[in-house]
Amino acid sequence: MKIVTKRIELETRGAGDLIDITLKVQKSLESAGLQRGNVTVFVVGSTIGITTFEYESGLITDMQGLYNSIAPQDRHYAHDETWGDANGFSHLRAALQGPSLTVPFENGKLILGIWQQIVLAEFDNRPRDRQVVLQMIGE
Amino acid sequence: MKIVTKRIELETRGAGDLIDITLKVQKSLESAGLQRGNVTVFVVGSTIGITTFEYESGLITDMQGLYNSIAPQDRHYAHDETWGDANGFSHLRAALQGPSLTVPFENGKLILGIWQQIVLAEFDNRPRDRQVVLQMIGE
Amino acid sequence: MKIVTKRIELETRGAGDLIDITLKVQKSLESAGLQRGNVTVFVVGSTIGITTFEYESGLITDMQGLYNSIAPQDRHYAHDETWGDANGFSHLRAALQGPSLTVPFENGKLILGIWQQIVLAEFDNRPRDRQVVLQMIGE
Repeated sequence: MKIVTKRIELETRGAGDLIDITLKVQKSLESAGLQRGNVTVFVVGSTIGITTFEYESGLITDMQGLYNSIAPQDRHYAHDETWGDANGFSHLRAALQGPSLTVPFENGKLILGIWQQIVLAEFDNRPRDRQVVLQMIGE
Repeated sequence: MKIVTKRIELETRGAGDLIDITLKVQKSLESAGLQRGNVTVFVVGSTIGITTFEYESGLITDMQGLYNSIAPQDRHYAHDETWGDANGFSHLRAALQGPSLTVPFENGKLILGIWQQIVLAEFDNRPRDRQVVLQMIGE
Repeated sequence: MKIVTKRIELETRGAGDLIDITLKVQKSLESAGLQRGNVTVFVVGSTIGITTFEYESGLITDMQGLYNSIAPQDRHYAHDETWGDANGFSHLRAALQGPSLTVPFENGKLILGIWQQIVLAEFDNRPRDRQVVLQMIGE
């Protein structure tokens, strides 16, 4: 059994940008040469989250609506007074959605449903350069 | 250290069906013969989630109420127009709750609180055949 | 590769107590002597959760507000009738936030954003003695 660390680096467009990274994770797994194990997908930062959903335009719109209902962008947050960067809503969404996801793989392939994609959720109120860590443990 | 992959297959009754799978996970762990490590419980599909809570009838009712407050079933979602299957609410609940959970074990037993059960949350609007992957890494 | 199990034990002050445990996790990692791998942070109990956020007073207030909006403390829950301990709201918040978090590490250090702390969220309506399990798998 071994550990292989990979990283995905990408640029986002700010709050509401939901990015399907399934293919990048699958390709990283293939380059690692592991057949069976887990990949932990961890997003670095406090205004970004990770989950899985069916990546299609209707649901993307719905997910944006869900995140907005959890922590509306147009409300004032105590955090906004700390740095003056008005992204309190971003932090709340990220903390609730969470930064880590662990996906099993077998025969060198991620075990996912057909309509289940790994999606990075940018919550910050401006474009960001992001780093996603893929920690693969397997054989 | 080694990896053992097990699967739980079960039939659900559709949205609101919350199923305690703790015993099945514990039995799978015993059949794997591992003493110490982690089991990652991963639900395959985009309208299903996994978490832990105290599995008793009052709280089951409350959890159903919580999920309904997050994404009401009687609201229209953009996703409903994509496939015409009216389960936008199911996808939103599943994405927020998340598909993976990692539980440590020791001396061959899951480390859980006395009132903490592993619960599969069916969110889809119809009965489904479900597959839960148990990826155990340990020794 | 090996598994090292550590525990953090701490006393909380009840609902709304959000505790930064990053340093404790980092120190446990150092005492384990591992350089590369994952640490799974698992909270034992059904009225407690774990996540990451920027640990500063404004956001702490905002997070308390978020959890209260998800499951208000002053509402009646069916669970409250089961035991008469009036902490239905605690269970709902814990189930949605989730009990497990997996953080990768490299060169003996947790891979986290500068403003990203590991935070234990006490949801119960009274002070509790808590146990957090740190399951480290690495080399």
